[in-house]
Amino acid sequence: MKDVLKRFTVKDDFMGKYETLIQEVVIPFQEKILHDQAGVAEKSHAISNFELAAEKIETGKCDQPFYGMVFQDSDVAKWLEAAAYSLGMHPDSELEKRCDEIIDLIGRAQWEDGYLNTYFTVKAPEHRWDNLEWAHELYCAGHMMEAAVAFYEMTGKKKLMEIMSRMGEHMYERFIVNEAPGYPGHPEVELGLLRLADATGNERFKALAEHFINVRGVDLEFYNWEHKNADWFPFGGTRPNSNMAYSQAHLPVREQTDAVGHSVRAVYLYTAMADMALKNKDEALKKACENLWESITQRRMYVTGSIGSAYEGEAFTEDYHLPNDTAYAETCAGIGLIFFARRMVELSAKSTYADVMEKALYNTVLPGMQLDGTRFFYVNPLEVIPGVSGKAKTHKHALPERPNWFACACCPPNVARLLPSIGRYALGIVEDTVYSHLFIGGELKLEEGMGGKVIVTSELPYDNKVSYHFEPTDAEMVMTLAVRMPYWSEKTGIRLNGKDISPKISEGYAYISGPFSKEDVIDVTFDMSVKKVYANQQLFADNGRLAVQRGPLVYCAEGRDNDDDVLSLVIEKDAIFNESFVHELGGVVRLTVDGLRRSSDTSLYSFDQPESEKVKISLVPYYTWGNRGLNQMRVWLPYV
Amino acid sequence: MKDVLKRFTVKDDFMGKYETLIQEVVIPFQEKILHDQAGVAEKSHAISNFELAAEKIETGKCDQPFYGMVFQDSDVAKWLEAAAYSLGMHPDSELEKRCDEIIDLIGRAQWEDGYLNTYFTVKAPEHRWDNLEWAHELYCAGHMMEAAVAFYEMTGKKKLMEIMSRMGEHMYERFIVNEAPGYPGHPEVELGLLRLADATGNERFKALAEHFINVRGVDLEFYNWEHKNADWFPFGGTRPNSNMAYSQAHLPVREQTDAVGHSVRAVYLYTAMADMALKNKDEALKKACENLWESITQRRMYVTGSIGSAYEGEAFTEDYHLPNDTAYAETCAGIGLIFFARRMVELSAKSTYADVMEKALYNTVLPGMQLDGTRFFYVNPLEVIPGVSGKAKTHKHALPERPNWFACACCPPNVARLLPSIGRYALGIVEDTVYSHLFIGGELKLEEGMGGKVIVTSELPYDNKVSYHFEPTDAEMVMTLAVRMPYWSEKTGIRLNGKDISPKISEGYAYISGPFSKEDVIDVTFDMSVKKVYANQQLFADNGRLAVQRGPLVYCAEGRDNDDDVLSLVIEKDAIFNESFVHELGGVVRLTVDGLRRSSDTSLYSFDQPESEKVKISLVPYYTWGNRGLNQMRVWLPYV
Repeated sequence: MKDVLKRFTVKDDFMGKYETLIQEVVIPFQEKILHDQAGVAEKSHAISNFELAAEKIETGKCDQPFYGMVFQDSDVAKWLEAAAYSLGMHPDSELEKRCDEIIDLIGRAQWEDGYLNTYFTVKAPEHRWDNLEWAHELYCAGHMMEAAVAFYEMTGKKKLMEIMSRMGEHMYERFIVNEAPGYPGHPEVELGLLRLADATGNERFKALAEHFINVRGVDLEFYNWEHKNADWFPFGGTRPNSNMAYSQAHLPVREQTDAVGHSVRAVYLYTAMADMALKNKDEALKKACENLWESITQRRMYVTGSIGSAYEGEAFTEDYHLPNDTAYAETCAGIGLIFFARRMVELSAKSTYADVMEKALYNTVLPGMQLDGTRFFYVNPLEVIPGVSGKAKTHKHALPERPNWFACACCPPNVARLLPSIGRYALGIVEDTVYSHLFIGGELKLEEGMGGKVIVTSELPYDNKVSYHFEPTDAEMVMTLAVRMPYWSEKTGIRLNGKDISPKISEGYAYISGPFSKEDVIDVTFDMSVKKVYANQQLFADNGRLAVQRGPLVYCAEGRDNDDDVLSLVIEKDAIFNESFVHELGGVVRLTVDGLRRSSDTSLYSFDQPESEKVKISLVPYYTWGNRGLNQMRVWLPYV
Repeated sequence: MKDVLKRFTVKDDFMGKYETLIQEVVIPFQEKILHDQAGVAEKSHAISNFELAAEKIETGKCDQPFYGMVFQDSDVAKWLEAAAYSLGMHPDSELEKRCDEIIDLIGRAQWEDGYLNTYFTVKAPEHRWDNLEWAHELYCAGHMMEAAVAFYEMTGKKKLMEIMSRMGEHMYERFIVNEAPGYPGHPEVELGLLRLADATGNERFKALAEHFINVRGVDLEFYNWEHKNADWFPFGGTRPNSNMAYSQAHLPVREQTDAVGHSVRAVYLYTAMADMALKNKDEALKKACENLWESITQRRMYVTGSIGSAYEGEAFTEDYHLPNDTAYAETCAGIGLIFFARRMVELSAKSTYADVMEKALYNTVLPGMQLDGTRFFYVNPLEVIPGVSGKAKTHKHALPERPNWFACACCPPNVARLLPSIGRYALGIVEDTVYSHLFIGGELKLEEGMGGKVIVTSELPYDNKVSYHFEPTDAEMVMTLAVRMPYWSEKTGIRLNGKDISPKISEGYAYISGPFSKEDVIDVTFDMSVKKVYANQQLFADNGRLAVQRGPLVYCAEGRDNDDDVLSLVIEKDAIFNESFVHELGGVVRLTVDGLRRSSDTSLYSFDQPESEKVKISLVPYYTWGNRGLNQMRVWLPYV
């Protein structure tokens, strides 16, 4: 399934606003943060670290200390990748010039032997490669490789790719030629290497990625050996004992069946595994990916498409353990799940993969950012109680409001790089078939015999129609359009030129074959009726509760709309929802529904049945929560 | 309110079995554990530590190392206290002889200057008194003082009290005469000192207890000063930064209003505060105790009378944060709450205090022990899901089955000392009034003008009648009987010699004044109808759920009785309970009630309303849960 990012221009009422926000607010705002010019609470120092590294390489010393996490470089990498996609959408010579300057700086921070990492250059040169488990050297390299490829693809400029190719060769020399043992604690470099191999045609990068995937979890003693070899820990204090499952190194990857450990590490690894399964037609690896996908999506995923049930280890826990108020549900993990889903739908064109991609996009990635683009969630709880959330020992991570930035700032630039590359997830091409996974309007330019444009017009996520027009270069376009039939639409209508058609539906995609001419229009109309969502009975946090969804959007009750108290609300299982479009929150369909408010006196427990008063419960899309000040929020409401 | 322990002999069908179990099984079993002869998984070594300390004192050295926690001595102390109460109930010359031998050993482990603590004698003599915050020297001394007083009161033997008086004098010298700064991190010594002062008449012990209470939280820099002075931490690693609230040292005690920090520390402190308020008629201290009581019982207590919402810090968290599956709800904290309640009812004769005492006794202390007396819970969750409980990162503490013993073994001997001293909590005397707090059958011997016996016959907790007979020494007993009207009985009948009476009821006690003769009988009959319990709407873990209570007993659903699945059960709010006495689980009233079982397919989320099938839900008393192997358990059930 070919990547269409370069060929797709977003023209969409809903997602287009996000593209503009990313371009006009998020990228400039994050650029200021990386330069320590934004005046936010958390210092970044990420650009300064590169300056210090360059100074050290050029003069042999630097007077200032490194600042930040061992993986601070990755913030610059992810921002550069985001900026690259933004440049791909909207050329901006000023931004491009500033990117070039940063890339020049990165080049100056690279050692003669190709090694690049500011932490190890400025702060701990003696520990280079000493700690693959914790030190994130390969992780940072992977992100910079992704940025390099993105910058090349979007601008045609090769400099960063050349820098990262030198780093790739340095790593190849170490791990393949010289057979240094080990694999990264935090998977990511595999993704970067595979993209770099594709972009450069250098097979050594692919071989190195495969090597890291294949040796993972095979030598179970590697981390212990490393620990004994160099008892050094970049986060201060003593190096903790290894927890192999935390970094998915407990078993050879082809034998893994349960999604375990740090959830971002997990989905980055699974993405690379799926990528490699695809490239090598590796059936065993594909089967492992399918098992891990099932483990996540059938037993360990929130209704919002978020993953990671525990702050402890930022990790998956056990089947059906999905607490709402203490959820980890990291924004990055939702993004990683989208990466994984994108590779899976390429391995097998089944709508279930794209369904999850859509779920995580609207209900984990979007809520990860304030509507104004300047605040971000790392953790996306499904229930928030001011006074407890962000405050109780068990809820310190579950902040009730988005901060501007984080000491560990992985999520904000991850959102910034995902949204402007959304075309890559919205559509895909296999031979003469154009897959429409996500319903985002825009123009897709085609070549290779299908010459012309497919023009997608989408009213989603609030209205129910998606239309496909065609602009053939010649008289007509010989192609098939495969449209996802989303799980949330019970009855989806498909019309060709105003006439109902019943195309073949396979694995959740409707295959409508052309040729198509300039006059042809395919209209797809979805059932957007409000759905009540019920969790599996074994999902013990949600017994007796239901969630509400309309189209791809999960809804929530916020205190602001419900007399500052959502905890006493009860929904009636047969109640009918009222829908109204309102302009607040950037324009949303607000839902109201008859329900009850239970009231009790001040006592903690009572034998008296609570009084029930009829009320209108007001719900807003979950992605908009927390945009109107501190207040309660709940996704799963008790029902009667 | 005078302590009636020595005067009350338990003769009770229900609690009597526990007294026998404590005497015949628990005390011998725990004695074997302390001697490392029980063959259980966790080694105690607690007696051996005293042998090593004695050897060191007598020979200047010992070859074996200390083993266990820095507070390992307290296990011996609590067991000795338990054994003392057992001897008080049932003289046993063999047991008494073995206690005497242990006391002799303790005496040999005491230094010439009165200092007593095996950890600091064997392992860390250079750190004596270096770390009041963490090292538990005062805590161990407090427990041994309590044991000493109990042993003296029950057997008349003074040796342990003399030993502990020497330790008390040593402490007085240090903290009062020589003005060494500080107060204990873990309150407990205050309780021991106050009891020792009462038993010996030595006012210095009372003064020292008062000192520790009064200076607590006044010098907020003390722990930091101590940290700088001696950066030594008895649990290994570096000494953590002080968290004043963790040990209730964040404010002067009279200014504290919220129950915070480590919950056992909290209630031990509050107990001592209430004791001191009582002894000194200290209104400010009483008011603080009342505020803290409200904080616990109106905002931070489980329906079972358990306290402590988080494993982290074994601590209180925030108002209305009372998660069921990750509850800490430590057995020791429930016991400490009973201590606190007992002092509060002495400060103000209000039934609400005794209500909580009863709640915690039946629903936290009893479930803390296996029915056979050989296994114990430290943590008492209100919801257990095998596969998650005891297994997920967030649930490691919430074991689904009772272990025999713990590395930190505070709870088992705490249960062992509470149950055989239950008379102290069941009854109390103020002038000529006998208070009947808990409905436990037995004989209370009176003196001081009320000469004779009050004989309590109780059918509780399963049947509804408590009767009071009188055996005057002379013709009649001039006294008032004050019977608690428990919150769970909506209509309580009181009859004197078969005739309904309506005595004055004040603050939840019915005051029935004598004189009473041998022919008089007072029958109190309770409404034992099954109650549905509803939590305050702000208690967000329990919205849409109800619990079930009958008399003082909270009930639960176990998988064993409900087709191995309690998570899909829903109770109907108007359903009527069926009660049947069954012999299993030691004899209980089992409840059955019409309800629904919701079923869903294997998918994690579905738009289809779950199918509902009518089922009988079977409930057993919560104190019996986990006695029939690994299975699910739930206290709060969703209702419709």
